[in-house]
Amino acid sequence: MTWRVNINSDMGEGFGRWQLGPDEDLIPLVPTVNIACGFHAGDPRIMHRVTKAAIAAGADVGAHVALPDLRGFGRRPLEIAAEDLLDDILYQIGALDAFVRAEGGTMRHVKPHGSLYAMCGRREEYARALLEAVSRYDRSLLVIVGQGWPERLAGEYGLTVRHEGYVDLDYQPDGFPVVEPMKQPRDAEDVARRAIRLVTEHAATAVDGSSLRVDTPTLCLHGDMPGVVDVAVTLRKRLAEHDIEVVDLATAVAG
Amino acid sequence: MTWRVNINSDMGEGFGRWQLGPDEDLIPLVPTVNIACGFHAGDPRIMHRVTKAAIAAGADVGAHVALPDLRGFGRRPLEIAAEDLLDDILYQIGALDAFVRAEGGTMRHVKPHGSLYAMCGRREEYARALLEAVSRYDRSLLVIVGQGWPERLAGEYGLTVRHEGYVDLDYQPDGFPVVEPMKQPRDAEDVARRAIRLVTEHAATAVDGSSLRVDTPTLCLHGDMPGVVDVAVTLRKRLAEHDIEVVDLATAVAG
Amino acid sequence: MTWRVNINSDMGEGFGRWQLGPDEDLIPLVPTVNIACGFHAGDPRIMHRVTKAAIAAGADVGAHVALPDLRGFGRRPLEIAAEDLLDDILYQIGALDAFVRAEGGTMRHVKPHGSLYAMCGRREEYARALLEAVSRYDRSLLVIVGQGWPERLAGEYGLTVRHEGYVDLDYQPDGFPVVEPMKQPRDAEDVARRAIRLVTEHAATAVDGSSLRVDTPTLCLHGDMPGVVDVAVTLRKRLAEHDIEVVDLATAVAG
Amino acid sequence: MTWRVNINSDMGEGFGRWQLGPDEDLIPLVPTVNIACGFHAGDPRIMHRVTKAAIAAGADVGAHVALPDLRGFGRRPLEIAAEDLLDDILYQIGALDAFVRAEGGTMRHVKPHGSLYAMCGRREEYARALLEAVSRYDRSLLVIVGQGWPERLAGEYGLTVRHEGYVDLDYQPDGFPVVEPMKQPRDAEDVARRAIRLVTEHAATAVDGSSLRVDTPTLCLHGDMPGVVDVAVTLRKRLAEHDIEVVDLATAVAG
Repeated sequence: MTWRVNINSDMGEGFGRWQLGPDEDLIPLVPTVNIACGFHAGDPRIMHRVTKAAIAAGADVGAHVALPDLRGFGRRPLEIAAEDLLDDILYQIGALDAFVRAEGGTMRHVKPHGSLYAMCGRREEYARALLEAVSRYDRSLLVIVGQGWPERLAGEYGLTVRHEGYVDLDYQPDGFPVVEPMKQPRDAEDVARRAIRLVTEHAATAVDGSSLRVDTPTLCLHGDMPGVVDVAVTLRKRLAEHDIEVVDLATAVAG
Repeated sequence: MTWRVNINSDMGEGFGRWQLGPDEDLIPLVPTVNIACGFHAGDPRIMHRVTKAAIAAGADVGAHVALPDLRGFGRRPLEIAAEDLLDDILYQIGALDAFVRAEGGTMRHVKPHGSLYAMCGRREEYARALLEAVSRYDRSLLVIVGQGWPERLAGEYGLTVRHEGYVDLDYQPDGFPVVEPMKQPRDAEDVARRAIRLVTEHAATAVDGSSLRVDTPTLCLHGDMPGVVDVAVTLRKRLAEHDIEVVDLATAVAG
Repeated sequence: MTWRVNINSDMGEGFGRWQLGPDEDLIPLVPTVNIACGFHAGDPRIMHRVTKAAIAAGADVGAHVALPDLRGFGRRPLEIAAEDLLDDILYQIGALDAFVRAEGGTMRHVKPHGSLYAMCGRREEYARALLEAVSRYDRSLLVIVGQGWPERLAGEYGLTVRHEGYVDLDYQPDGFPVVEPMKQPRDAEDVARRAIRLVTEHAATAVDGSSLRVDTPTLCLHGDMPGVVDVAVTLRKRLAEHDIEVVDLATAVAG
Repeated sequence: MTWRVNINSDMGEGFGRWQLGPDEDLIPLVPTVNIACGFHAGDPRIMHRVTKAAIAAGADVGAHVALPDLRGFGRRPLEIAAEDLLDDILYQIGALDAFVRAEGGTMRHVKPHGSLYAMCGRREEYARALLEAVSRYDRSLLVIVGQGWPERLAGEYGLTVRHEGYVDLDYQPDGFPVVEPMKQPRDAEDVARRAIRLVTEHAATAVDGSSLRVDTPTLCLHGDMPGVVDVAVTLRKRLAEHDIEVVDLATAVAG
C-alpha cells in the first residue's frame, strides 16, 4: 500500500529590498506554492519571479491572501467589514492570476495567511467572504484553510475546501496551530516523524498531550523557518522511505 | 452619413473615505469606463462597486493602470525599471479583472494614467513594458494611449492600440495634452464643439494656434472635472444632433 | 457670571489629491485644531498647510494621532501591540511638531482619533501607551480623550487629561458617542442647545433618554460634518448670547 | 600629530517583519548613526529600538531622510515638487526626534538617503528644500551630504553642511559614488587603506584612475554591506594604529 500527501509552502514573502526565505531552493522540494499577493508581503516583481520559478519547476501556484497590513505581516487581527474582506481577497486572487497567466500556467488554489487564516476559521462571516470571493472568481480553485468554518460551508459555495496539517508548528487542543511570531527552527527528523504519523495514522499530539485526529491531504511547511530547505530534504527522504508519495494538491485531495 | 465615436472616462478615483467624481451619475452617459486599480487611486471596494455599476449599465470596463503613487495620484514621474513597470501593470490588470469576472463581465481595454500615460508615449522602454504586459495577459484587450510610442509598437505585440482625443483639455503642438493639476471646469458647448470637430474633421487646434490632425476612435471625458455630468449630457445631445453615434470602443475602432 | 468653554475640531483629514472638510473656513471659528498626522489621513503637505493656517489664525494645534490605516480612515479596530502603539503615537506627535516648530508655534495637545479613541477609553494597556508616549515627549501637552481609562490614569503620568463633550453626535448611555461612519448633518440650533446645556448644566441626554453628567472643558465639532461652517457660526453666536466665552483649551481646563 | 575622523552608518533599515543589517553589533563601532525614518525603510518600532540602542551606546543619532518609496528603498528618482520635499523632510526629522526625545537624547544631524542624496547634490531646488527644512527645524543640526549644491548653499541657511567620504563604494570622477543596487562585500583591509588615505592625504582614486581631492570630516560605512561588522572592527583597528582618532561628528567638523 502507498500513501499520498501534498506539501504546501508559503513563498514570495519579501518586499522590495527585503527578502524572506530561500524560495529558489525550496521550490523544487514542494509541489504546492502559496504566493504572497502584496497585502502582507510580496510585490509585483517578487510575485512574478516566484510564479515563474514555480511554474518552471512544475509546482502548482496559489494565492496566499491576507489582511492589508504590510507592517504587521498580516498577523494583526483587523476588524474589517466582511464586504471589504471579500473585495480584498478578489483583488489579491486576480493580481496573482495575472502573473500565472503571463507565464502560461493555471492558478490552482487559495490559502488565507496569518490573522486572516485564523479569522476565517473562527468567524462565519469571514469564512463566507473567503468562499464567496473564491467561488465568484473560479470554482475549480481548491481552498486550503485551518480548522473551522470554511470546511463546514464549502458545499454551499460549490468549493473543495481542506484544512492542512502542521508538521513544524505545535497543535493547540482545538486543532489550531500555536502561532510563532518569528518562526522557530525545528528538528528535521521530528518534522518527518510528525508528517509520517499525520499521513499514516491521521493523528497528532497537542501541546497538552491530548491526541487529535487530523485527516488532511496537505502538510504545511513554513518557508520562513530557519533551515527549511534541509528540513524539506529530510522530510521528502523519510516520506519516500515510508512509501508516502508526495503529490500535487488535486491528486492528494482526490485521495 | 453617420459618424461613430466612443467616449471614455476615468472613474473609481476615490480611496477609502475619500471620493472623487460623480461616478454613479456619469456611468450611464459613457460607454467606456476606465477604472483605477489601487495604485494612483481606487481600492478593492471602490473597484468592485464601480465595476458592478458599469457592467449593470452596459458599459465596458478597462484597467486604468498607473504608477504606484497614491499620494501623488500617479502624476509624479518615477524613474522605475521597465521590468518593475511591466509587473506593476500586470498586477493591476489582474486585480481589476477579478471584479469584472466576479460580476460576470469581460474586461475590454487598458489605459495608462497620469505620468505613466506620458511616460509610455515618450519612452520606448515604458511603451514596451505596457504592451508586453497587456499582450501576455490577453491580446484581445484594446489599449487607449496618448501620442507616441505605443501605437508605433502595437503590431509587434499583436495588439490594437489607439490614441484618444481630448475635448476638455487643451492640446500642445506635439499632440500631447496640457495637463491640469486640478481639473478645471469647461464650457459644455465648447467641449461639444471640439468633439464634433474631432469626429467630423479629425482636427483640433493647439494652444499656439497651430492645427493638429487627430484621428481617433475615442474621446476622453475627465470624470474629475467639475460639472462633468452636465458636460456629458450636453456633449451627447450635440453629438446626436450632428448624427454622431456614441458606440463602444471596439465598434469605434472597427470604424 | 460667565462660563468658558473650548471648541476643538479635527482638520487636515485629506490625503494627496483628496480633500475633506472646509479647513480654511473653519479654522477662524475654533480655538483648538486637531491635525491628522498621516496615519488615518493627512500627508506632510496638508499637515504643514493646516498647521500654518491655524497658527496664523491664533488657534492652538495638536496631534490627532491614529491607528495606521489610511484606507480605513483609522476607524477599523486593529489588535496592535501596546508597544507598537506607543511608538506609532510618538512618531505622529513628532512629525506634527516639526511643522509647528517650523511655523514658530508650540504644540499644545494630543487627541486620539477613531478606533484608537475608543480603544484608549476601553482598554488600559492602550490608554497607558497613549499616556506614556505623551509624557515621554512633553508633559505640558494636554490630552483630549473620550470617557474611560485615560482620565483615571492621568495622574500616574503627570499629565492633564480631559474628556470632551459631543454636540454633533449622540451619546450612548455609557457616555461614549454613537459613531457615524459618514458624518451626518446636524441642525445648527440643536447643536447650539446641546452645547449650552453641556456648559451651563454639565448635562446631556443619551439615545435611550437617560441623563448623563458631562463635565468637560471642550466641545468637539466634527470638521467633516456637512455644513460644519454654518453650524460653527451659529454655535458661536448662541454661546455668546448666553455669556459663554469660547477660550483656548488651557484656559478652559484651568476653569 | 593625531588625525580625527568621524564614521557614520545607516541603520534601522528594516521594516516590520524584515530586517537589514546587524544594527545591534554595529552600533558600538560607529559614533554616528543615521536612522531611517519610515519613508524608504524603518517603522516606528524599529526607529525607537535603534535610537534607544544608539543613545545607550553613546552614539549620536540623526535622521536619514528619504523619498517616500518603501518598495523602491528610496532609490528610484521621483519628480517631486520641492515644496512637497521640504514637507516630507520636516515630517521625517520630527518623527525621529520624538524617539530621541523620548530616550533623553539630542538629535545631532540629518543625512539624505538614496536618490534624495543624489538629487540634493545635483539640483539646487532640492538642496534648498533640504536646507530650509533643517534650518526651520533646528540650525544646530549638522547636515551630511554628497558632493554638490548643499555645501555651496549652506551659509545662506546658517547651517553646517559637510560631504562625506566613501570607503566601501567606488568614486566616479565627479566625486559622486558608484551606487550598488545590492551592497557588495568589500575587503576590510582595502576599506581601511582607503580610509587612512582619505584622512591623512585627503585623497581618493576614481574608477577611471583619476585622483580626487576629498576633504571630509566623516566616513560612510554602509550598514547593509555583507560582513560590515568585521570591516568596522578592522577599520577601527587600522585607524588606531595610524593615530587616527574616531570622534563624534561635531568634533570632526571642528577639525
